Amino acid sequence: MKNRTLVKNLAALPDGPVTVSGWVETVRDQKKVQFVILRDESGAVQLVNPATRELDENADAGASARLAMTEAISALTHGSFISVTGDLKHDERVKLGGIEVKIGALEVVAEANPETPIAADSSLDKRMDWRFLDLRHPKQNLIFRIQTTFLHALRTYWVEHDFVEIQTPKLMASASESRAELFEVGYFEGTAYLAQSPQFFKQMAQPAGFGKVFEVGPAFRADPSFTSRHATEFTSIDAEMSWVESHEDVMKMHEELLVAGLTAVKAKHGAEIAELFDIELEVPTLPFPRIPLREAKQIVADRGYVIPRDDADIDPEGERQISAHVREAFGHDFVFLTDWDISLRPFYHMRHPEDATLTNSYDLIYNGVEISTGAQREHRIDVLVAQAREKGLDPEELEFYLDFFRYGVPPHGGFGMGLARVMMLMLNEHSIRETTYLFRGPTRLLP
Amino acid sequence: MKNRTLVKNLAALPDGPVTVSGWVETVRDQKKVQFVILRDESGAVQLVNPATRELDENADAGASARLAMTEAISALTHGSFISVTGDLKHDERVKLGGIEVKIGALEVVAEANPETPIAADSSLDKRMDWRFLDLRHPKQNLIFRIQTTFLHALRTYWVEHDFVEIQTPKLMASASESRAELFEVGYFEGTAYLAQSPQFFKQMAQPAGFGKVFEVGPAFRADPSFTSRHATEFTSIDAEMSWVESHEDVMKMHEELLVAGLTAVKAKHGAEIAELFDIELEVPTLPFPRIPLREAKQIVADRGYVIPRDDADIDPEGERQISAHVREAFGHDFVFLTDWDISLRPFYHMRHPEDATLTNSYDLIYNGVEISTGAQREHRIDVLVAQAREKGLDPEELEFYLDFFRYGVPPHGGFGMGLARVMMLMLNEHSIRETTYLFRGPTRLLP
Repeated sequence: MKNRTLVKNLAALPDGPVTVSGWVETVRDQKKVQFVILRDESGAVQLVNPATRELDENADAGASARLAMTEAISALTHGSFISVTGDLKHDERVKLGGIEVKIGALEVVAEANPETPIAADSSLDKRMDWRFLDLRHPKQNLIFRIQTTFLHALRTYWVEHDFVEIQTPKLMASASESRAELFEVGYFEGTAYLAQSPQFFKQMAQPAGFGKVFEVGPAFRADPSFTSRHATEFTSIDAEMSWVESHEDVMKMHEELLVAGLTAVKAKHGAEIAELFDIELEVPTLPFPRIPLREAKQIVADRGYVIPRDDADIDPEGERQISAHVREAFGHDFVFLTDWDISLRPFYHMRHPEDATLTNSYDLIYNGVEISTGAQREHRIDVLVAQAREKGLDPEELEFYLDFFRYGVPPHGGFGMGLARVMMLMLNEHSIRETTYLFRGPTRLLP
Repeated sequence: MKNRTLVKNLAALPDGPVTVSGWVETVRDQKKVQFVILRDESGAVQLVNPATRELDENADAGASARLAMTEAISALTHGSFISVTGDLKHDERVKLGGIEVKIGALEVVAEANPETPIAADSSLDKRMDWRFLDLRHPKQNLIFRIQTTFLHALRTYWVEHDFVEIQTPKLMASASESRAELFEVGYFEGTAYLAQSPQFFKQMAQPAGFGKVFEVGPAFRADPSFTSRHATEFTSIDAEMSWVESHEDVMKMHEELLVAGLTAVKAKHGAEIAELFDIELEVPTLPFPRIPLREAKQIVADRGYVIPRDDADIDPEGERQISAHVREAFGHDFVFLTDWDISLRPFYHMRHPEDATLTNSYDLIYNGVEISTGAQREHRIDVLVAQAREKGLDPEELEFYLDFFRYGVPPHGGFGMGLARVMMLMLNEHSIRETTYLFRGPTRLLP
């Protein structure tokens, strides 16, 4: 590897020779002195060079070299990757971290085109066209370092609790959720479909006797909508557990998992998040509030918001309202809305033992937006088939899935959660486009 | 959650009441006594019940209950999920772990169909039809627990070394590797393609200034072959790093990563692997042997095997031969074959500075089979475009990728590695079908 010092490690070094490598963020080419801000994956540092603008008559080789260096720095284009060896000096007057590096040798490793296609005020869509440049910004970079920490904490929680990681196939012979939002794939002489969720396959781990499983992987929805919360491809965080007694057991694991994730993020990135996002990240208290959906709708109505729907569902503004209520009443960013009407849930959700109009299910709302759906699943094959029929599904098309329940299966439940939504709400961003590495929508397949 | 004790935790408990829950592995229904082997995700335990076969004239309620229990146990079908409360007793004479549970109460949670569709001698293809039953076997279960440990150790290595996790899109506007093995997806009014690897997108993290990245996710190849090593969908383990000086830097990270993974697997599962797979797992020593491909082919030829190819490539038997040589000469299970001929490598591999017929690349062979390809990438846009043309590619079709190199990019390199192959070779299995949760091939999309 290139022998270099990461910018974040410079401050701890004594004055002396160092090599730093990264890209040119800005050049301030003043008459007597030149400043370059060099950024790498860990931070930014000021490089400095006393300018030599012309040679006098008796100029020696050293002066020629100094002129050449000055001209090389003047010619640096924004974004070029360079490697610089020079003298590190601690100097409290330097605003950027109290250090600077006096340039000794400069190597331009890859010169950038002089015209940068995006600027600070570019539209989100334009920034997405040039996502690899957009991601150079410290905020964008931090989002994905936070995501790394968050996911690792989730997986560590699962591994410590004896969950098994599975990789379920994304190519399927039939729909996993709804025929309406299904991508078709030409598959040799036939057709395959892209998995809309790992639902059926994570449930398969239950009759397989895996006990508890998790997966973090892509899911696909041929959803033509253009909201800030929808994508045609997204990263789904999924878990499923045997021997749950109701959706309460799923919620308990779910909230512990999120606390583990947010605790790790706050510990590692809390200061950076405060600096770049102006957010004091809170680790939520346990347990998260739980409100039955019908009760939540009453609370929203009492706040004066009339949900413009004829069915039992809530809408995005209703979710914001109930979140605001929970923040006021409990000081909490999360709320489980529980016990959804059967009309709003898929056939495989288990129904209440005492009220067959309700399911053992929940949605999790985080800062006003739904991030997850969880439920206990129906594991009794006769009930499952009846519920499928009731939803207008043909059990024959679901044969491979229904077979999972015919040879013994434990009671089970789990959830699916959208990673980009969690990140968006954690960092108060306004769209999952900001928290997705490369967003995919109905009109976006590039880069 | 169901209040139960995992089977693996029974041995440490004193004699007394316990509840165990799992599936019926076998019933031995003897005249005087009934034995049930119950298995859960952690192990198997013997349940015992003294049989009551008939009632005499003055039978009391207790006797009736005992008869009912005996009949319930006789009726148990293989695979049914049950929950049993009873008395744990340590007894050295019991072969299965020196413990048994005398059945007090038995609940059949989900009854299995009496005919089990697969048996111990079923073909691999038949077992795959009923994968959820096949996975109940202790060996299959262990494979995925090992995989969980392995992946977590890899990710922990990366996180500790400041890699950023990325989730790259699987829907693309063009091919990522070769037009030949591409799946087409109907995408609203147009067409998308499934990513054959995250190659272009993990490289994109380099001009984005992420430094070091990793991803574990699905990749898709419309490959019509039916070998033991190929699938149409597989889990790819990928990493990419900035500022490498050659493929040597990539190999160094790669071998450290594998040592971290195998160390964790041996520590957690070494004894089970010895018991179920009859393998004493070895943690390989560092560094792994490195042999230039041309030299490797000479070694294979000297061993008397003539590779039946006219080009510079090696073949599967050649890989087995060079592995055998490395095992004999260095006592090592791994070997890097380095410096592949440009004709065998994609356009984006960097070429040797001193020999333009060779690339800065490698394949990693594990116990005779290729598991990974790695390389330094060409980051100089003019050279990259020339190499693409040389391979007969149209740079216009690659515009979005080539743009990554036009606005500054550091030198970089990385590798892609097939998870199922690593698991297959670690456990001496004969096909990736055994080490894939749900295999996908040209004629297999179910379950």
